[in-house]
Amino acid sequence: MQRRRAVAKAITLLESTRPDHRARADELLAQLLPHSGRSVRLGISGVPGVGKSTFIEALGLFLIERGHRVAVLAVDPSSKVSGGSILGDKTRMERLSVDERAFIRPSPSSGTLGGVAEKTREAMLVCEAAGFDVVIVETVGVGQSETAVAGMTDMFVLMQLPNAGDDLQAIKKGVMELADLVVINKADIDPDAATRAQAQVTSALRLLTQHGRAMAWAPHVMSMSALTGEGLERFWQTVEEFLAVQRGGGALEARRKQQALEWMWERIDAGLRSEFRENPAVRELLPQLRNEVAAGRVAASTAARKLLDARRT
Amino acid sequence: MQRRRAVAKAITLLESTRPDHRARADELLAQLLPHSGRSVRLGISGVPGVGKSTFIEALGLFLIERGHRVAVLAVDPSSKVSGGSILGDKTRMERLSVDERAFIRPSPSSGTLGGVAEKTREAMLVCEAAGFDVVIVETVGVGQSETAVAGMTDMFVLMQLPNAGDDLQAIKKGVMELADLVVINKADIDPDAATRAQAQVTSALRLLTQHGRAMAWAPHVMSMSALTGEGLERFWQTVEEFLAVQRGGGALEARRKQQALEWMWERIDAGLRSEFRENPAVRELLPQLRNEVAAGRVAASTAARKLLDARRT
Repeated sequence: MQRRRAVAKAITLLESTRPDHRARADELLAQLLPHSGRSVRLGISGVPGVGKSTFIEALGLFLIERGHRVAVLAVDPSSKVSGGSILGDKTRMERLSVDERAFIRPSPSSGTLGGVAEKTREAMLVCEAAGFDVVIVETVGVGQSETAVAGMTDMFVLMQLPNAGDDLQAIKKGVMELADLVVINKADIDPDAATRAQAQVTSALRLLTQHGRAMAWAPHVMSMSALTGEGLERFWQTVEEFLAVQRGGGALEARRKQQALEWMWERIDAGLRSEFRENPAVRELLPQLRNEVAAGRVAASTAARKLLDARRT
Repeated sequence: MQRRRAVAKAITLLESTRPDHRARADELLAQLLPHSGRSVRLGISGVPGVGKSTFIEALGLFLIERGHRVAVLAVDPSSKVSGGSILGDKTRMERLSVDERAFIRPSPSSGTLGGVAEKTREAMLVCEAAGFDVVIVETVGVGQSETAVAGMTDMFVLMQLPNAGDDLQAIKKGVMELADLVVINKADIDPDAATRAQAQVTSALRLLTQHGRAMAWAPHVMSMSALTGEGLERFWQTVEEFLAVQRGGGALEARRKQQALEWMWERIDAGLRSEFRENPAVRELLPQLRNEVAAGRVAASTAARKLLDARRT
């Protein structure tokens, strides 16, 4: 209990926007960092109704029974508006949330996706330093949050319903190609539909990757039922198989390196943009120039140069 | 001939990276702008071998015979490396390029996609001010160049070969959903395959848009042969139909407004990023911090904050 409270407190500090808190947060991060990184980072995405909570609770209970310590985090940029659509309501994972070997934290609600993702990344480091060796990051299938979650985890799992057309939606949104593993859930309801969906996704993935280079790991597809637990053990075996392959060739280390650098640049870009918007000269000029550009009276490139120059004088 | 030379000269000035040229270029843009905008801006994309050049030459000749003046521009960020893979070789559009009612300009080769796109956008304004009333912007199916071209044109046309799996590739890359019109080319070679491809793309587009809002224009699909000219007239009819629908509801104006504002922000972001990279404090700190982040010794968010702060002191 002590440990969970300390983790929660640390994350609250990291989520604070007060400048003095931010300085202490950076110190804390520096202290934590050498103890972080020793976990399996698992990203899980899927549209609302696909059964993510049921799956994560079942998986969490399965893992703590086997000696793991499981942290569940979330990235949901809409949580501010909706009042926390995922993980906000802890009763959704009743059994897991009361277990001391598990830690569940709803999505931070700091507005932009980049901001929310940053807080979740930092929370992940806290959980790792506190000894949680499986960190699950959940997201809903909206906007670019899947890309953010795939960008902070070792393995990205896409959950799908056994519906025709679902695979096409995922391909369209570019989520399918992020997936290391596609899970067709709710196979208990209609096993035939699940089998068909599995075949569909398998052939879609084959077409998506056929023009690419040879991969150490071709994305897998499996069907299961989170509700009955059927397929859960197979799921975890697949995760372990994936990790073995990735660790062997150094791909896991390379992935984490690249993720860290991309994260750094994403934060730099966000910082530059917010500085720019807060600059007094920009605040004065922007509204009018924006209108002129929209009306076609000033070229967009000219307006951009004017605004950039205005800050320097 | 006079006019074409003046246009070419103006574009060369706009493409220059010399600071004194840039000031004159901004003046020129300001003068041109009131006379720009009165053209049909047509984006055309498709993988190499789909027959873009043949199609554009046939369309260009068709249009100038009907009294139009046609400019053909290109966005190809790879042209620097490849020495101009599209439009660089004017002999590819032999008949169109010698006609004074047409103006053909290869892709600028200034490196980043954002830079190349900016030059092409500005060249478009020059062509419009010079009286070209159809501007065709060509791009190859690589990277994000399709998004850039769709972001500067009134209508985005995707050319496809009658091959199975081609539609899935386009969906995967997010290009299909940019398309206002999909053209299956080379229908003369295998009419049955073209018919099948047309049906496939039609059903894919239906699935892609079924969850969306009602649209004034649902993306069309047609098959044709640029080589024989079969379908060319129908193509242009479809373009005119599209424009009538878009102009009626004010959608065309709204699209151009949004494009101009997005262009402005894209240029601002690019400017901020390049300023940042050139800052002396950043240049000094970045190499080491990048290594520390990659090695997991410094948190990415901490590094980003350090670099942002370093510029201010």
